[in-house]
Amino acid sequence: MPRINKDRVLSDLRTLRSFGAYKTGVHRPTLSEPDVAAREWFANRLREAGLDAEIDGVANILGRSRTNGKKALSGSHLESQNYSGWLDGALGCVYALEAARAIAEDPATADLGVDVVVFCDEEGHFGSFLGSRSFVGLLDEKEIDDAADRATGMTMREGLAKAGWSGRPRFLIDPSRYAAFFEAHIEQGDTLESGGGAIGVVTAIVAIWQYRITVTGEQNHAGTTSMKRRRDAGREMIRLLAAIDARLAQAAGERSVWTTGRVTLEPGEKSIIPGKAEALFQFRDADPAVLERMEAALREEIARAGREGRCEVALERLSASKPASMDEGLQAALDAAAEKSAPGRHIRMPSGAGHDAQWLAPKLPTAMMFVPSINGISHHWSENTSDDDIVLGAQVFADAIVNALRR
Amino acid sequence: MPRINKDRVLSDLRTLRSFGAYKTGVHRPTLSEPDVAAREWFANRLREAGLDAEIDGVANILGRSRTNGKKALSGSHLESQNYSGWLDGALGCVYALEAARAIAEDPATADLGVDVVVFCDEEGHFGSFLGSRSFVGLLDEKEIDDAADRATGMTMREGLAKAGWSGRPRFLIDPSRYAAFFEAHIEQGDTLESGGGAIGVVTAIVAIWQYRITVTGEQNHAGTTSMKRRRDAGREMIRLLAAIDARLAQAAGERSVWTTGRVTLEPGEKSIIPGKAEALFQFRDADPAVLERMEAALREEIARAGREGRCEVALERLSASKPASMDEGLQAALDAAAEKSAPGRHIRMPSGAGHDAQWLAPKLPTAMMFVPSINGISHHWSENTSDDDIVLGAQVFADAIVNALRR
Repeated sequence: MPRINKDRVLSDLRTLRSFGAYKTGVHRPTLSEPDVAAREWFANRLREAGLDAEIDGVANILGRSRTNGKKALSGSHLESQNYSGWLDGALGCVYALEAARAIAEDPATADLGVDVVVFCDEEGHFGSFLGSRSFVGLLDEKEIDDAADRATGMTMREGLAKAGWSGRPRFLIDPSRYAAFFEAHIEQGDTLESGGGAIGVVTAIVAIWQYRITVTGEQNHAGTTSMKRRRDAGREMIRLLAAIDARLAQAAGERSVWTTGRVTLEPGEKSIIPGKAEALFQFRDADPAVLERMEAALREEIARAGREGRCEVALERLSASKPASMDEGLQAALDAAAEKSAPGRHIRMPSGAGHDAQWLAPKLPTAMMFVPSINGISHHWSENTSDDDIVLGAQVFADAIVNALRR
Repeated sequence: MPRINKDRVLSDLRTLRSFGAYKTGVHRPTLSEPDVAAREWFANRLREAGLDAEIDGVANILGRSRTNGKKALSGSHLESQNYSGWLDGALGCVYALEAARAIAEDPATADLGVDVVVFCDEEGHFGSFLGSRSFVGLLDEKEIDDAADRATGMTMREGLAKAGWSGRPRFLIDPSRYAAFFEAHIEQGDTLESGGGAIGVVTAIVAIWQYRITVTGEQNHAGTTSMKRRRDAGREMIRLLAAIDARLAQAAGERSVWTTGRVTLEPGEKSIIPGKAEALFQFRDADPAVLERMEAALREEIARAGREGRCEVALERLSASKPASMDEGLQAALDAAAEKSAPGRHIRMPSGAGHDAQWLAPKLPTAMMFVPSINGISHHWSENTSDDDIVLGAQVFADAIVNALRR
């Protein structure tokens, strides 16, 4: 079986950290100068590993193996969130690269092929999963035309032109070429750490259902308007959100999460009764039945508030993705690889975050593997994973790919 | 008894509406061009009424009667909120002017004197009750030096200089000169309208106690952080505010009002668990015992949330004014005047809004009189009062001043 090269894995990750270094993390937004440089560097690294690597017209990178037979496809993303962690995305790219190298270097597995893919903009600076959606044929040119960086305003077309990648064709998946897609990622939570686990074998990527709740009352003077007369949109929103939270605690599954990310009262002055209130609300679960149950509970609470309160209450569903199930055979391949290197320290778990793998899952048998996040921290420059866990994860990942290709 | 001149009252009010006209209301912020022009016009109107009128170094106007004996002091404010109503403030100024004129014109009351005062910036463009606080000796030069318009940034010193009023001495109240202070105002609520009342006799101006509530949790990924592990500052704030609202409904008095004017979740993104939440909260009542009871209830809920929840909860008291009781004898003078012109259509009621009168009350026996606001609307350009109610109010106001000076 292949032996991964520990120093090479850590060195590649540290080199990637130098592109847009920020404190102990990175600031490497999609198509920023450090991101373009990181992509060029990574494509060269793929070529040094013997892969035919190119960057396409949406900044995806594909490194093709020259072996015969069904190959594994593996990868993740290279850009970071703004001022964020060094491993989010980069780890999965380097694991894929290292698996391709280690498998090619071992005579016993040199017949097996690993294509390495790097998807553009998983972090959503320009849109929603533009790279992986492009790769599976679900992105039209119009969406690229319209895309602009949310923070800087730079259009995606400008960014691609600056990088010299304008007008290139975009890679499209050839499902007949692959036996499986494998993505590794940091967990971004503390399930592994708190359970003493070193490897997470992902069962499914949860669906995210997002909503805007709007309460419309009557703006008025906070001193002269009696409690009986007022139609306080803020008060109604607070009661409604508290009721929704209590209700979802009943309707939710064991692993469900729900979050009110934003509440806005208008006009937001201390002596004015809010005439309007808006909230962004979401929940996540891997089980369609649980998702439906949570939405029904939400809709009932909205209807009740509209019926019993003194304001108009409206619910708008902003998005509702489908849970992406991971392939059972590939989960077994990950279990077996993990049991070999970290006996008893691997856990099956859903992914609460979205990943490029959810777009590959309808096209190929797909697997995801997690390594622990220290203190469960993610989307912050202090995000980290111990070197030991990084190295262990790289070995398990390469072994699992071999297991999958050999079965 | 004096007869007010209906056409003169309405004409003066309509002329004032022409200074900064906006839709059916006015945009006349303190020391803006229309405000300065309105003050000059009003000071001239006082002179035409036989008063010795001047504008002082903080833009207050004082028109002094030349009669002997104890006088009444009466007035309100001339500036408006931004893009707001035409009667808020202006009505009380014109009523005071008309009372001075009508009382002087009637040989039976010509021995009585009414000084007319116009306070600067009751609406708080530059600060908090700068004009009335200056008049009662509670404003130092430093506060004027530091004052700047919240919307435009113009300093108060610049505004005073542009108007040509820099360096003028400021008027200070001479309590020995006066038997009473009278202020008339639109109600700004719907107590009169809904109760069929034409005149409100104010019993007290409520106190406003204001607070900032801060909840500190841990910012984290809304997908990967389990409900059990998260320390969601937004969720805790929503629960807390709902609990405070339910609790105050028990602790409050019959006329108490309470308002959450602003809620902010940080960072306010749909997929990030808020790490911090802040709310602005206030309550109002005229009874010190009720205010204390409400604060105790608030503090108990804050303490309970800190003890039982998973976040840090802090309460900061931003301000706590005292209720201002209106003089009982002057209330009787208003009752009697109202009973004469509007039998059975006068109501005793607290003022839920703050007024200049609250700063005069510790210095002089003080009275306030309300006229109805159509649909209870205020702080909006559509604010209005019927002509009949305006005229009736002017007569009752003048009669009440005579009642007070004759008793």
